[in-house]
Amino acid sequence: MTDSNDPLAHCRGRFFLPEGVIYLDGNSLGPMAKNVPGVMKTAIEDEWATGLITSWNKADWWGLPLRLGDRIARLIGGDEGTCVVTDTTSINIFKALNLACNLRPDRNIVIAEQDSFPTDLYIAQGLADINRHIELRLIGVGGATLDDLLDDKVAAVLLSHVDYRTGALLDMAGLTQKIHQAGAVAIWDLCHTAGVFPVDLQGANVDLAVGCTYKYLNGGPGAPAFIYANKRHHQNLVQPLTGWWGHAEPFAFKPDFAAAPGIRALLCGTQPILSMRALEAALDVFDDVDMRAVREQSKALTTLFADLVMASCADYGVKLLSPQNAAARGSQIALAHENGFQIMQALIARGVIGDFRQPNIMRFGFSPLYLQPEDVRIAAKILTDILATREWEQEIYSQRNAVT
Amino acid sequence: MTDSNDPLAHCRGRFFLPEGVIYLDGNSLGPMAKNVPGVMKTAIEDEWATGLITSWNKADWWGLPLRLGDRIARLIGGDEGTCVVTDTTSINIFKALNLACNLRPDRNIVIAEQDSFPTDLYIAQGLADINRHIELRLIGVGGATLDDLLDDKVAAVLLSHVDYRTGALLDMAGLTQKIHQAGAVAIWDLCHTAGVFPVDLQGANVDLAVGCTYKYLNGGPGAPAFIYANKRHHQNLVQPLTGWWGHAEPFAFKPDFAAAPGIRALLCGTQPILSMRALEAALDVFDDVDMRAVREQSKALTTLFADLVMASCADYGVKLLSPQNAAARGSQIALAHENGFQIMQALIARGVIGDFRQPNIMRFGFSPLYLQPEDVRIAAKILTDILATREWEQEIYSQRNAVT
Repeated sequence: MTDSNDPLAHCRGRFFLPEGVIYLDGNSLGPMAKNVPGVMKTAIEDEWATGLITSWNKADWWGLPLRLGDRIARLIGGDEGTCVVTDTTSINIFKALNLACNLRPDRNIVIAEQDSFPTDLYIAQGLADINRHIELRLIGVGGATLDDLLDDKVAAVLLSHVDYRTGALLDMAGLTQKIHQAGAVAIWDLCHTAGVFPVDLQGANVDLAVGCTYKYLNGGPGAPAFIYANKRHHQNLVQPLTGWWGHAEPFAFKPDFAAAPGIRALLCGTQPILSMRALEAALDVFDDVDMRAVREQSKALTTLFADLVMASCADYGVKLLSPQNAAARGSQIALAHENGFQIMQALIARGVIGDFRQPNIMRFGFSPLYLQPEDVRIAAKILTDILATREWEQEIYSQRNAVT
Repeated sequence: MTDSNDPLAHCRGRFFLPEGVIYLDGNSLGPMAKNVPGVMKTAIEDEWATGLITSWNKADWWGLPLRLGDRIARLIGGDEGTCVVTDTTSINIFKALNLACNLRPDRNIVIAEQDSFPTDLYIAQGLADINRHIELRLIGVGGATLDDLLDDKVAAVLLSHVDYRTGALLDMAGLTQKIHQAGAVAIWDLCHTAGVFPVDLQGANVDLAVGCTYKYLNGGPGAPAFIYANKRHHQNLVQPLTGWWGHAEPFAFKPDFAAAPGIRALLCGTQPILSMRALEAALDVFDDVDMRAVREQSKALTTLFADLVMASCADYGVKLLSPQNAAARGSQIALAHENGFQIMQALIARGVIGDFRQPNIMRFGFSPLYLQPEDVRIAAKILTDILATREWEQEIYSQRNAVT
């Protein structure tokens, strides 16, 4: 692959990237699309300051959850009207787990993954605490696999499409089929694939999915999350966070809750409009993007990085944690090194931004929308230099921060 | 009262108000403080676009829920470390109700108000649906009062400090004492008092409180809500939305949930930072504001409006729905008229912005931070003109919108 045949090269100019930075942390916080400041100026000065409450209708703030949901649905293989942007991934997992358990009232087991991003597990634990009927089984505890845990008591299985540490990619279609064969509901966490992988929820017959919008969808810090429900469940979207935005007639102010038809039943309270408008601007970038092309470039970029790094850094103790085969991983490369924290600090000081995860993992995310092979070559070269010169041993690189 | 002795007159210049508008709908969406665009430019261009993930620490995005919570605590009579800004009012009500029920595990009744803003009721219904142990009793159904419903089975009572329709103000200290005497937990919804009333949660010995920040706190459309917990409960902040932001060690990525000490246990998932930064700018307005002075001006403004309107409009069929006595109401005047919808549309067309609530209520909110007696006089005069000339009968004023 050469830079000149990158079908996504035209996208790069749509992002602001600081001078001298190679940004390999889009799996934590995506960079800002250049149209965001203009859209936000409109949202703040025209819609809020001047339009005031009339903007709920005139600027259709009220429609943002569904409007943004439809745009994301296109990127994750969902039909129109199957996805809303709202609340946080954690809260949407809570809705999805409750909904799944309501769909299988005669079953009481939820399967989750011991090694998933912890909030998925924590929320499942919270549900089990409030609903004593529900019990958890965890993939990974004592080496248990999904096959070991699936039986006719399982109501729901919550799986991460890509492992946030290793980058390992699961077979969504195959596992969903297996879950359905056991009579359970399949819930997928798309935090690490939405925006960088041609997710095909409809094709894989997925029941429910959640994901965040501030990683590869570049929606801005803490941008609201999304939740998807397959149309075959739209008659039964029962979940306990029954706020007024999920009511069939939100402005009738009736005393009894009656769920809105369709995906709106997964809304709850009033949403943060300014953060949603930033996300709306960010999604413009995807309008002419073919997600299959994104995947091809993503595999090429992660392969190039893994190959270069393992050729030049293995002797310094670096190990590849991600699957070797590009088809078996998402858009990230995870490297293990006992001094990973310091090495990552040294990389950041040299403008190569990735992040560190306990206990020894250096994570690098690759979005082909703003990264090209030359960036990858430079990043691998700088990593090699830092290891060869032992630059990472400088004391300043040992200071710990809360978030990196 | 004359305009010249308004101790809050200096605040007016801190807000942007469109030319020709008298804004009496701050109880729906507060106007924009003038410092918001500058703060948002910094948040978007410096913190997000340039700082990227380093802003979680360098701009202390991570600290926003507590930092903003402390600033709001000062306005509602809470101690430092007793309030966080997070999620929505609806979701915070869910947390508060669960928490209250956990505090009284031997009791199973939740009391709410039939005439509260519906989301409060809907969330209580959602809780009762997921937790079959819990039953609801509603103040207002069949004329039932709190006294009728309070007994030794009641775990929690959820009350609105100010009625969103009539503006009636409840006696927080007296009712909280009554609830405590029955052994129950008192939860207050401050949506219509935070930012316009010297709420004294500590003085009233309130257990839990929630509220929104986009009304009288002017945080921007859909700005995140807040939740307060009295320090005496901080050892027992158990609620089921146990996301990673509420974990004692969020970056240790441990598989088991362990609640953070103190008020952080009421956080759940990643928050919308851009919306929070707008709120942070809006709160600057309150830095030198004495909430007791706000209350005095608020009473003066609502009294002036009610007096002028009832003197000139009663003959046209306008009735005062709000309590006659200023001390018995919040910062709003509600008027009933069978053609209230059309009259409100005609008012808005003339630049006097209030809102309409079913079935026949015209609501007017008065924030003394940006309103002065002269505004009130003009608004009352325009309302009188519209009624005298029957201007509201024009066909254009009959069109219904979803949100007004």
